[in-house]
Amino acid sequence: MSFNSFGRVFTFTTWGESHGPALGVTVDGCPPGVPLDEAEIQPFLDRRRPGQSRMTTQRQEPDQVRILSGVFEGRTTGTPIQLMIENTDQRSRDYGDIAQAFRPGHADITYHLKYGIRDYRGGGRSSARETAARVAAGAVARAALRELAPTLSITGYMVRMGDLAIDRSRFDVAEILKNDFFLPDAAAVGEWTAYLSQIRKNQDSVGAAVELLIRGCPPGLGAPVYAKLDTDLAAAMMSINAVKGVEIGEGMEAARLHGTENADEIRLGPKGPLFLSNHAGGILGGISTGQDIAVRFAVKPTSSILTPRRTINAAGQEMELVTKGRHDPCVGIRAVPVAEAMAACVILDHLLLDRAQTGGRRGTIGPGTSGSQAV
Amino acid sequence: MSFNSFGRVFTFTTWGESHGPALGVTVDGCPPGVPLDEAEIQPFLDRRRPGQSRMTTQRQEPDQVRILSGVFEGRTTGTPIQLMIENTDQRSRDYGDIAQAFRPGHADITYHLKYGIRDYRGGGRSSARETAARVAAGAVARAALRELAPTLSITGYMVRMGDLAIDRSRFDVAEILKNDFFLPDAAAVGEWTAYLSQIRKNQDSVGAAVELLIRGCPPGLGAPVYAKLDTDLAAAMMSINAVKGVEIGEGMEAARLHGTENADEIRLGPKGPLFLSNHAGGILGGISTGQDIAVRFAVKPTSSILTPRRTINAAGQEMELVTKGRHDPCVGIRAVPVAEAMAACVILDHLLLDRAQTGGRRGTIGPGTSGSQAV
Amino acid sequence: MSFNSFGRVFTFTTWGESHGPALGVTVDGCPPGVPLDEAEIQPFLDRRRPGQSRMTTQRQEPDQVRILSGVFEGRTTGTPIQLMIENTDQRSRDYGDIAQAFRPGHADITYHLKYGIRDYRGGGRSSARETAARVAAGAVARAALRELAPTLSITGYMVRMGDLAIDRSRFDVAEILKNDFFLPDAAAVGEWTAYLSQIRKNQDSVGAAVELLIRGCPPGLGAPVYAKLDTDLAAAMMSINAVKGVEIGEGMEAARLHGTENADEIRLGPKGPLFLSNHAGGILGGISTGQDIAVRFAVKPTSSILTPRRTINAAGQEMELVTKGRHDPCVGIRAVPVAEAMAACVILDHLLLDRAQTGGRRGTIGPGTSGSQAV
Amino acid sequence: MSFNSFGRVFTFTTWGESHGPALGVTVDGCPPGVPLDEAEIQPFLDRRRPGQSRMTTQRQEPDQVRILSGVFEGRTTGTPIQLMIENTDQRSRDYGDIAQAFRPGHADITYHLKYGIRDYRGGGRSSARETAARVAAGAVARAALRELAPTLSITGYMVRMGDLAIDRSRFDVAEILKNDFFLPDAAAVGEWTAYLSQIRKNQDSVGAAVELLIRGCPPGLGAPVYAKLDTDLAAAMMSINAVKGVEIGEGMEAARLHGTENADEIRLGPKGPLFLSNHAGGILGGISTGQDIAVRFAVKPTSSILTPRRTINAAGQEMELVTKGRHDPCVGIRAVPVAEAMAACVILDHLLLDRAQTGGRRGTIGPGTSGSQAV
Repeated sequence: MSFNSFGRVFTFTTWGESHGPALGVTVDGCPPGVPLDEAEIQPFLDRRRPGQSRMTTQRQEPDQVRILSGVFEGRTTGTPIQLMIENTDQRSRDYGDIAQAFRPGHADITYHLKYGIRDYRGGGRSSARETAARVAAGAVARAALRELAPTLSITGYMVRMGDLAIDRSRFDVAEILKNDFFLPDAAAVGEWTAYLSQIRKNQDSVGAAVELLIRGCPPGLGAPVYAKLDTDLAAAMMSINAVKGVEIGEGMEAARLHGTENADEIRLGPKGPLFLSNHAGGILGGISTGQDIAVRFAVKPTSSILTPRRTINAAGQEMELVTKGRHDPCVGIRAVPVAEAMAACVILDHLLLDRAQTGGRRGTIGPGTSGSQAV
Repeated sequence: MSFNSFGRVFTFTTWGESHGPALGVTVDGCPPGVPLDEAEIQPFLDRRRPGQSRMTTQRQEPDQVRILSGVFEGRTTGTPIQLMIENTDQRSRDYGDIAQAFRPGHADITYHLKYGIRDYRGGGRSSARETAARVAAGAVARAALRELAPTLSITGYMVRMGDLAIDRSRFDVAEILKNDFFLPDAAAVGEWTAYLSQIRKNQDSVGAAVELLIRGCPPGLGAPVYAKLDTDLAAAMMSINAVKGVEIGEGMEAARLHGTENADEIRLGPKGPLFLSNHAGGILGGISTGQDIAVRFAVKPTSSILTPRRTINAAGQEMELVTKGRHDPCVGIRAVPVAEAMAACVILDHLLLDRAQTGGRRGTIGPGTSGSQAV
Repeated sequence: MSFNSFGRVFTFTTWGESHGPALGVTVDGCPPGVPLDEAEIQPFLDRRRPGQSRMTTQRQEPDQVRILSGVFEGRTTGTPIQLMIENTDQRSRDYGDIAQAFRPGHADITYHLKYGIRDYRGGGRSSARETAARVAAGAVARAALRELAPTLSITGYMVRMGDLAIDRSRFDVAEILKNDFFLPDAAAVGEWTAYLSQIRKNQDSVGAAVELLIRGCPPGLGAPVYAKLDTDLAAAMMSINAVKGVEIGEGMEAARLHGTENADEIRLGPKGPLFLSNHAGGILGGISTGQDIAVRFAVKPTSSILTPRRTINAAGQEMELVTKGRHDPCVGIRAVPVAEAMAACVILDHLLLDRAQTGGRRGTIGPGTSGSQAV
Repeated sequence: MSFNSFGRVFTFTTWGESHGPALGVTVDGCPPGVPLDEAEIQPFLDRRRPGQSRMTTQRQEPDQVRILSGVFEGRTTGTPIQLMIENTDQRSRDYGDIAQAFRPGHADITYHLKYGIRDYRGGGRSSARETAARVAAGAVARAALRELAPTLSITGYMVRMGDLAIDRSRFDVAEILKNDFFLPDAAAVGEWTAYLSQIRKNQDSVGAAVELLIRGCPPGLGAPVYAKLDTDLAAAMMSINAVKGVEIGEGMEAARLHGTENADEIRLGPKGPLFLSNHAGGILGGISTGQDIAVRFAVKPTSSILTPRRTINAAGQEMELVTKGRHDPCVGIRAVPVAEAMAACVILDHLLLDRAQTGGRRGTIGPGTSGSQAV
């Protein structure tokens, strides 16, 4: 039970500090025989990379991944897969004068309180650099899911940034990878670009909300009561740096609903159960129905901004802090590929858990069904 | 790694179906020497009990807990504590005519799809009866926390029910246990009572939002990156039946914020760090700061309502279903003590995890601190 | 991660003290649809029961098991299965005068040192009563294995008791359940009976060695490097009260062997690989080959004997202790059904783990095999 | 729950194939503030290294360890510690002609059966190269134990090799690091050297038995019933390549003992309980007493020998195999530092688990003790 591991059968363990020589992840429990190579993983890292667009941070990291184990002649072996990414653009100098000061809104002070020691450079282990490792793990999960759940798709996009929200009537999945915001709304790109540029000029930052649409999830994934699919998806999103809220389906809005509005009726379709609506968000009792799953989460604004903030340092001195590092005016943007990666890991994990307990066999619905199946 | 266990060191495993002879929980990892008896636990169950007020379901269960192990001469022994609650008011007859039909909005169909078999009576394992076992486990956690973290308090209350929201300017903790809604707003009780009665008369149901205020949490709890305190609190809430969204601190609102508004500045107070605000919600980088932690979650409306719904059964027949059982017009109310129990378990677990890795020793802040401590 | 849970997917958690009202086990992760009822489980408990024969202890416990959850209309539901056994013949009076004294050779003193409190009656949680719960869990595992691995058999028997060892040339599996020793050697029963009676008359006790023969284990079970099948079998045996050594295959004898003697050569048989010998004991690299697996372990003599022993009590007083309770002259006998139960749980667990990671699909051996399979 | 992770709080996860670019380990849960650098770890790897003496294999690996994370300014941070060792002397050419053949006595065939794919070069993941990663993890554990349990010592040595056994009357701990066999018996070194040289000349190999003496273990470590200290030590040893049997204290000999010989009586000494003997081997009921713990295990002979063996390959062809690689005539020798490393990890893990549940506080023995302590 490692604090730095995520997953129950398909498990990944990340390591590495922001300014250490490298960071990486050990992926365990991956099914054998999955085609995998570095070219499979790299594009996902590229989408997340700092310095890739003008929209995100100005730290330039190539984030080149190397596979060090667990793959042979282009296929996974079932043994642990080690993925490593070297840090090249640390610029430790940027952080020198805040060596013992605690940046407001960051984990500096809590790491100091808990451990009594912290690698302060670039936020050390608390830095969002760690999410590069998650994205690499997610690429492995996606490769396995391509074999095990070919109808599955996981698509992330932004739905809000500060005062701006998308117009769902113009929603177009095809637009997401064509702009720097992962926006599914082409008409909004200009407005979002101008808005964020202004925020950067103001030396400020802004929050965001991200949504994931999971389509074609096999039904029956999720293990009640404490390994429910929605519980694990929510935990996955909440574990991402700066996330403060998570919603499944209707989310917080469910508090305002009435039961008459909320029930998803069921009919029998040509291929099995046909749900007439999807208020449940594709999950009932913690188990997937096969319908679309929508997960949404909110990311708070970066606190590493360029206006002065009052703080203290480990010696107990009061001071004002101006962090001169290179920071994101909106970290929510990069959370999109991270969330997709986490979701891929959760779904693969649950697919493996389900086939552990049930062999992946589903209960039948049709004439002659007694409601109980052979093992 | 049990699907029905929650926790990492302080672990509880629940069992039991809604209409089985009993339900219960095995609590493991509890520190030894904690004073505990049935009278300690029973009040928490009473607060949750169906049939206790006119506001909730009409099933009448005494929910009497028995301690079957792990306690000797009034103190915990450090061995597993088995708590059992017998079911007495099952009334299986109520469910007879929906034997193979899947109630819309419930886990019936997903349990059937996943397992191929389900105890359909009263919802079987998917029923919220299971939450009685959690409340019992939470009472054990509270008993241990009284010894280990005496300043800690965990208080839950409703903040929304359908169209009605509390007025935070009238917030008074002392009111919470004086009304049937766990409302901290005495003036609203009449309005909420009338609203819910009307909903019941309409044979309808309504959603709710619950908030937990955790005060006096020791700083330093939470283990990054995948055992963060907020991650585990969120997972705990999301695992409760019918929960669709979870928020920590500002929650989904964080997406609208700007960084200038969001940073909690720090000064040095007489007893250590003094935060000038609490936008972070008491948790930074997944580790507690010692400040108030606010957790909020939304519960969707019950779907077991008395208006007809279209559905199918396991034999593939289409039908209309009217569930004649005894149901809650607002399950969110009973979620309040359940959420408190879950939070107690999470915090105790993290306290034990923290003392595993660090011995509970905190980094010092003051003159002469080098930033690194002895082991 | 519960200290009182065993297993990784098929997990059981035991609870209960020797003189508490009951003891039991929660079995989780069991595949759904397995036929199971109390009559299925009871015979295994009867084989283990104290008071069943003159050979074991004189405490008379009916050990009647009740299924409280997880089974519906005669089949497992995939939800937690709670099995409870009430204690009826505690006779707490027997232990009254050793209330704070530590019985030599027992866990009394270590439980006191670790927890600062212990239920001393009958050894509390450290008592071998706990093994009744394991046997119940093992019966559930066997029921599932009957469906999932019908060729599998797990047979336990004694191979040594003090100075007496079986003659393997007279080995006959059919004899095992015909005598009180689980001896596979009919001709030895008289000698063993006399030997043990004399030991009891001398107010003494004696050690034993037990062997398990596992036949028809599916190949491919076991997950290197830290969930190897032999590692988990060894841990399972070592966790049984009073076990001091475990062997797989040649065991400790392997230290004396030369490599020329030790290699199992392989030919191609009509149904696949054919091993020409089995020095490996059915497991290579932690993974089953499909050959017979032999596990052997040694149980030390009971220390609760009737000759006086020097000890101290919690108050620091020195005393002599004569334990007047009812005790086993050879606890190794009852370990036989316990070991079978543990082995069943381990093998089922590994079968589920294997189907999690590989879907249970095996690498093929034959023309056209490229050495790598689809997922 | 990763198949390639060991430990419950202090957890390490290994990765890497014999002929991959590197191998390594992620160590998690280490207490913060422990002094650690590469120079601390390297000597343990040097003791294990192949090619270091004429006694072991002739593969020459420098096994230089690099710390890639989790350490800052010479102390552990409490975040994951990544240790990496590059492979330099793979000589893949040696294995070329056995590409699809299964070496008798090795895991080749079982890895193929389980995964359908294997990295065959040098045994891939099943190779004992993996134990280098364990030794590195063990060095981290030792560093933490130096701080947390300064009286603890863990010493491993050989007690048997084939026909030769040590003479315990000549036992001298100081001799162990002075010869290539980790022999505590200086007079035997010549005989063992000659014996092993002859075995190598005969193109044969031989088994061994290793013993670990753990002194000064803090009392109270171990968590019944399924996280007992002896269970975890046994599992640790059994997980080492080629181990076939494990013993604690008297081990398999316990089967021959009588109870009168076996009980360790207790008196009150100046510093607390004083045991008059140690048949229990330092562990009672799975919890340490503070006395010496002796763990012993047997390692089977290497099967990669130079005499021809009959086998098959993945295509189903029968053949004779002569493995021309560089192999150990006695792998038991290198198991000594590996076993020490595993024991260090187990004991540190249990120390942390114990302080999780009990805060490390021990029950008192003396006047006024009520037998129950505050939390």
